[in-house]
Amino acid sequence: MANKVAVFRKEHFNAAHRLHNAAWNEEKNDAVFGKCNNPNFHGHNYDVVVKIVGEPDPQTGYVIDLKMLSDLIKENVLDKFDHKNLNLDIVEFSNLNPTAENIAVVIYTILRNKIDKKLELQIRLYETERNFVEYPVT
Amino acid sequence: MANKVAVFRKEHFNAAHRLHNAAWNEEKNDAVFGKCNNPNFHGHNYDVVVKIVGEPDPQTGYVIDLKMLSDLIKENVLDKFDHKNLNLDIVEFSNLNPTAENIAVVIYTILRNKIDKKLELQIRLYETERNFVEYPVT
Amino acid sequence: MANKVAVFRKEHFNAAHRLHNAAWNEEKNDAVFGKCNNPNFHGHNYDVVVKIVGEPDPQTGYVIDLKMLSDLIKENVLDKFDHKNLNLDIVEFSNLNPTAENIAVVIYTILRNKIDKKLELQIRLYETERNFVEYPVT
Amino acid sequence: MANKVAVFRKEHFNAAHRLHNAAWNEEKNDAVFGKCNNPNFHGHNYDVVVKIVGEPDPQTGYVIDLKMLSDLIKENVLDKFDHKNLNLDIVEFSNLNPTAENIAVVIYTILRNKIDKKLELQIRLYETERNFVEYPVT
Amino acid sequence: MANKVAVFRKEHFNAAHRLHNAAWNEEKNDAVFGKCNNPNFHGHNYDVVVKIVGEPDPQTGYVIDLKMLSDLIKENVLDKFDHKNLNLDIVEFSNLNPTAENIAVVIYTILRNKIDKKLELQIRLYETERNFVEYPVT
Amino acid sequence: MANKVAVFRKEHFNAAHRLHNAAWNEEKNDAVFGKCNNPNFHGHNYDVVVKIVGEPDPQTGYVIDLKMLSDLIKENVLDKFDHKNLNLDIVEFSNLNPTAENIAVVIYTILRNKIDKKLELQIRLYETERNFVEYPVT
Repeated sequence: MANKVAVFRKEHFNAAHRLHNAAWNEEKNDAVFGKCNNPNFHGHNYDVVVKIVGEPDPQTGYVIDLKMLSDLIKENVLDKFDHKNLNLDIVEFSNLNPTAENIAVVIYTILRNKIDKKLELQIRLYETERNFVEYPVT
Repeated sequence: MANKVAVFRKEHFNAAHRLHNAAWNEEKNDAVFGKCNNPNFHGHNYDVVVKIVGEPDPQTGYVIDLKMLSDLIKENVLDKFDHKNLNLDIVEFSNLNPTAENIAVVIYTILRNKIDKKLELQIRLYETERNFVEYPVT
Repeated sequence: MANKVAVFRKEHFNAAHRLHNAAWNEEKNDAVFGKCNNPNFHGHNYDVVVKIVGEPDPQTGYVIDLKMLSDLIKENVLDKFDHKNLNLDIVEFSNLNPTAENIAVVIYTILRNKIDKKLELQIRLYETERNFVEYPVT
Repeated sequence: MANKVAVFRKEHFNAAHRLHNAAWNEEKNDAVFGKCNNPNFHGHNYDVVVKIVGEPDPQTGYVIDLKMLSDLIKENVLDKFDHKNLNLDIVEFSNLNPTAENIAVVIYTILRNKIDKKLELQIRLYETERNFVEYPVT
Repeated sequence: MANKVAVFRKEHFNAAHRLHNAAWNEEKNDAVFGKCNNPNFHGHNYDVVVKIVGEPDPQTGYVIDLKMLSDLIKENVLDKFDHKNLNLDIVEFSNLNPTAENIAVVIYTILRNKIDKKLELQIRLYETERNFVEYPVT
Repeated sequence: MANKVAVFRKEHFNAAHRLHNAAWNEEKNDAVFGKCNNPNFHGHNYDVVVKIVGEPDPQTGYVIDLKMLSDLIKENVLDKFDHKNLNLDIVEFSNLNPTAENIAVVIYTILRNKIDKKLELQIRLYETERNFVEYPVT
């Protein structure tokens, strides 16, 4: 794939969440999730980096117009997640623990349906500067 | 104050909050606080920078031992605020809106009581990389 | 000013510029401004940090609504400077060298007219991560 | 390739550019490139990260001497691009749109000719903190 | 590996080191390692990013508990390397030059023995913001 | 001082050091300085930010030419401190503990003698991203 280039766009959103498994009692939830299990929630400034791989269009020199990609992320991810409670406000997490791993997979699934299938897609999600995840694995 | 040096220690905590004035109806709260008024809360990675001003001790070369300062911030601020809901879990915000301005003043008040009066104290609080506050003003 | 709090909002814009004194010949311009004098221009990602000092409103806990401040900066500074050539497109620099110092003073003058006189204002402008300026000096 | 290590060196340069396709009329250029099509140019602080993959030399522990790599980037990339107008001053862009994608490919081509063929090479180019590209794709 | 997710944890340590090959005379050491060969040592703030790849546990949503990973890094890497002289205090470097490449390999070897074999492991080590390495190469 | 502007230049150096008071026994040194007292030294990537305050020259728009300031810092500070052992290689610390506070004062003293007296000078020194100092205090 000698002519392919990867392009990246970084966006961010702020959200509350709680790590919790409803199938477990509180004792087990506390043992496994510790202070992340606070029933009153805590929160993060999430940074999301969207990576798109493809061949640049010879007319524009773009793999994808990053302004269009930014708008796509805003409409489909930021407008849905920003200033929200992931557990209470986002239907995808009604039965799914909003760990960084699961949030990345959910964002991938949302964007995969909106982006041309000939372009490869990967999500990197920063929960903090020191804790981050990537999906899928290349 | 030719011999004074300022020293700074940066720490961080993650918390949920909501901006809201209980004396107002929802319509007014929404008009003033917008998406920050989400009743289910949202959250942030807060960075707090504590500035201490004083004369270095000639025996140590320290204005204050930054390891001691770090422990002091951990015990009095981080253990209280980290992975908490500022509105529900922190008594200081039971009747005070947890804006960045008010959080900085609360942290200042907590630490001012723990730090030698001959040392000056200032708090800088980052709510996001782009929104931050400083108290008191020098 | 025991009750005053400083609040900061960071924004950015991308622009081309050239350092040049039209009253000098090319030899002197090259000697003083070096590669910054390239007649075809070069450019920067500028970060601008706007600092506002005042007393928080007891009803909101805000010195100033940072969303309103962000919109004010966008309308009066970013829409004017972003993706522009400072020398050719910005009337303020038709006879003023667009050094970081002068850009900061111009942004200050623009915003000072738009912000309540009871609030203090200061501009920090980053031309690069390693070169930055602040105006006025406190 | 169990013994291979990747080493990275980050450098930066500041340049002006304009996105434009000379085969199109202004209306189409404006529709596609928007404010990036400003005929007076705009500019960026570019960060370039050069990645080299190979086996460390057992005598030195180096894949490549990063001081030598830094000098190689300075002589072949920074001296050519820094404080320049990419469209007007750089021959490679006389008929090639200087998008981040194309700049990365041009830098790769320049350095590929200067670095031992047994070492793999990849370029990451940041146009802004939020927009960046990588070439080739691994 | 459609279900695999990569998770990353960043930690840091501060250490002194010197680059030197005991089999060479001083003249050759100076020629090859330059100021890094200072016999009195110099030092760095090292950032180490540990990447773990695996399938999230459906009960927790975790590939690995990042708190446990952080503790594992602290006990096995930071307690051993932080505030140490890599050449004099760390047995692994008694006959191995502590270049960034070799430090990354040593950290990988230490952690590979402590982490479940079904999880993939990669180390990224920053010696400075501008010089960093990754091992193994994927 | 309505017309004054502050300009800042950031530089960095890497050095080894040890915190120690030769007038104390080892027990007391360990109690006060902990792991910073390692007799084999540890080290840091120091960032130094030099702030200069003055009125911009109307001919250039510069308070001071930042390229000249950068060269001045390189010749007088970086060439002296970079890749050195502060305790053993720098005469100013032969009887002075190289804490961040004392390093900042030493750098201030060196540069104060090299910079026009009508310009104000302040030093900010980062020992790590989380520990930093400023001298003099304004």
